[in-house]
Amino acid sequence: MPIVVQKYGGSSLADAASIKRVARRIAEAKRAGNDVCVAVSAMGDSTDELLDLANEVSPQPPPREMDMLLTAGERISMALVAMAIHDLGYSVRSFTGSQAGVITDASHGKARIIDVTPGRVTEALDKGHIVIVAGFQGVSQDTKEITTLGRGGTDTTAVALAAALKADVCEIYTDVDGVFTADPRVVPTARKISTITNEEMLELAASGSKVLHLRSVEYARRFDIPIHVRSSFSAKEGTIVTDHPEGDTVEAPIIAGVAHDRSEAKITVVGVPDQTGKAAEIFQTLADAEVNIDMIVQNVSATETGLTDISFTLPKSDGRTALDALKKVQGSVGFASLQYDDQIGKLSLVGAGMRSHPGVSATFFKALADSGVNIEMISTSEIRISVVTRSEVLDDAVRAVHTAFGLDSSEGEAVVYGGTGR
Amino acid sequence: MPIVVQKYGGSSLADAASIKRVARRIAEAKRAGNDVCVAVSAMGDSTDELLDLANEVSPQPPPREMDMLLTAGERISMALVAMAIHDLGYSVRSFTGSQAGVITDASHGKARIIDVTPGRVTEALDKGHIVIVAGFQGVSQDTKEITTLGRGGTDTTAVALAAALKADVCEIYTDVDGVFTADPRVVPTARKISTITNEEMLELAASGSKVLHLRSVEYARRFDIPIHVRSSFSAKEGTIVTDHPEGDTVEAPIIAGVAHDRSEAKITVVGVPDQTGKAAEIFQTLADAEVNIDMIVQNVSATETGLTDISFTLPKSDGRTALDALKKVQGSVGFASLQYDDQIGKLSLVGAGMRSHPGVSATFFKALADSGVNIEMISTSEIRISVVTRSEVLDDAVRAVHTAFGLDSSEGEAVVYGGTGR
Repeated sequence: MPIVVQKYGGSSLADAASIKRVARRIAEAKRAGNDVCVAVSAMGDSTDELLDLANEVSPQPPPREMDMLLTAGERISMALVAMAIHDLGYSVRSFTGSQAGVITDASHGKARIIDVTPGRVTEALDKGHIVIVAGFQGVSQDTKEITTLGRGGTDTTAVALAAALKADVCEIYTDVDGVFTADPRVVPTARKISTITNEEMLELAASGSKVLHLRSVEYARRFDIPIHVRSSFSAKEGTIVTDHPEGDTVEAPIIAGVAHDRSEAKITVVGVPDQTGKAAEIFQTLADAEVNIDMIVQNVSATETGLTDISFTLPKSDGRTALDALKKVQGSVGFASLQYDDQIGKLSLVGAGMRSHPGVSATFFKALADSGVNIEMISTSEIRISVVTRSEVLDDAVRAVHTAFGLDSSEGEAVVYGGTGR
Repeated sequence: MPIVVQKYGGSSLADAASIKRVARRIAEAKRAGNDVCVAVSAMGDSTDELLDLANEVSPQPPPREMDMLLTAGERISMALVAMAIHDLGYSVRSFTGSQAGVITDASHGKARIIDVTPGRVTEALDKGHIVIVAGFQGVSQDTKEITTLGRGGTDTTAVALAAALKADVCEIYTDVDGVFTADPRVVPTARKISTITNEEMLELAASGSKVLHLRSVEYARRFDIPIHVRSSFSAKEGTIVTDHPEGDTVEAPIIAGVAHDRSEAKITVVGVPDQTGKAAEIFQTLADAEVNIDMIVQNVSATETGLTDISFTLPKSDGRTALDALKKVQGSVGFASLQYDDQIGKLSLVGAGMRSHPGVSATFFKALADSGVNIEMISTSEIRISVVTRSEVLDDAVRAVHTAFGLDSSEGEAVVYGGTGR
């Protein structure tokens, strides 16, 4: 029997009525002849409510207890979804992450899945039960502590279960119709992407696209699990993330989409002595403080002073930690001062076609220049160009680039490159 | 190091401020030089809120999933209590019922504790951590399913932990100052009992006193664990439940207290053929439907008709089930009709002194007669007399009996019988 793994996020499980709707959707997949395993997030804003409670009780709650607390959210939603499915006349079993065999490392709040040992899930599926699994959570391998995977972790739970169960597909149900060429709230003419490669999806997720959790895409790529991102509010086909698209000749567009991100800040370390090892000292300090760095720019040294500036971007949430850590080494590193700027935005153009189309960056920079957007930092990968701009011009920049690459839905087809499958 | 087990109920954990207050209380016990293990209930009305959610989703939720759902409540409160304790500078670990080794049978919603294997709790205590355990929940021995112990089950969790840890005392913190000679809301002159035997406490709990969960008293009796029932809102000594009171000569009162109960209903099976085995058929039917029967009265048979009436009391919540089950056997048993009455009240007088004081029942019935209370049913044990009355006269009856036995606090000492300890 084909195995389908589904995932429903909190916005699809906001209240009793939504839960019943999701239950009908799950029952449909079972009725269609599949074994069905479902990962669920906590209801609506319930995770935020638990966080608020925690903050009322303690300004710095211990991460172990935070994970104990937050995992209650998925426990509630999975039990309710199971009840609603039972009510439709289907047999069903819910399992916590731990019961479902989601084994992680011991990093509370941002644990990584090491292994999935789905014995109880498989047994329940074999008996004909629909299985509901609490997303976002697992149990640490050695210490048997309850862990959570971080925001968006239920996507990863679903993909990891799909891999462990050798599922035919992992369906990620969300509140949008799929992955778009840009955020439709910023670019109303953005189009739904019908198929996208894992590589492109990874770059989009890493660049601010919120549709899929980055790690879930990594996991799907590693285990070669096709993901179908679709809306829980409609029956429309969504976006298939796969490296093996169906059909003989797929004309893949040069550009998959434009992502943007306002969650980062920029720190500039001013007046760093231009000596070997100074940058290393700075970034080792940040690594020790567990700050995640994204883009880095070092100015050309002003030869008369022997000093240089180093700028980097990082999540705003790490800003305080990074500044504190750097201040402690100001004397030993010998820099002059720190500048903190949280009014930046990042725009990323992603497309596997960039590899074979050298004209992409020219078109990209021209579009930004024509719309008067000033670029502060640039970074590239093989299939991505990212720039940092002022936050207030970011939306304009996204629209300009989207249009320049023919991605607007009113303009007919996007620029494509031919091929017999990719 | 002495080991103290404490229990805090939902009313002591209603919000963040209450949780912090409880945390300070727990820290105090640790600071006083004890190893401290604490069982907590769900916050305030959160269990009821989860029940409401379940009912919105499904009219008849499967018990397994109901237990999954409800156990989230204690998980939330235990994590928050642990955070608040951490915030006071103490090291702390929270454990679910399953993690704490609370092993139960597989009866979802009303599981019984079979064993406690507190390896992780002991290890944490040995490391100097304060331990918080989710009350009300466990894991079934063979099927490894999450179970709950029924309303009030956290008392039993606490006592079972105290027994397994060989604790010196189990402190049950609640929103009243201890066990009273009657419900102070009904009898304003009721007195706090300073010491009470397990046997008397069992009869009070079985007769409607809500202070302690019946099974927790059974458990404490079996394992000889002293219970200290006290208020979480004051530092006053509460009530010690023990069969080994301190001091050389304890003058124990004849009567421990008066309990009342409005949670029962009465069913009368009218016109039962007065033949051997008819009563057995009726009660077997009720047992098969898992209805708990309390008191039973069979009228003297009217010899001319060969028919008799059988009345019994049962929890109101079992009323519908009992009536349905009995209707199905009306033909085979051959009774005429069923009467259902949920406007009854039960009053129970409890005291170990009854054994040696034959005058107790005379005083009891005289007090009820003097206050004009009509008695509908009577049942007795060695240390208890219970009567069923109309619900609307129950409070008057309780006050009359309380006064007749000299239990009112304004009347000085209660009637006592001497002894050199008991």
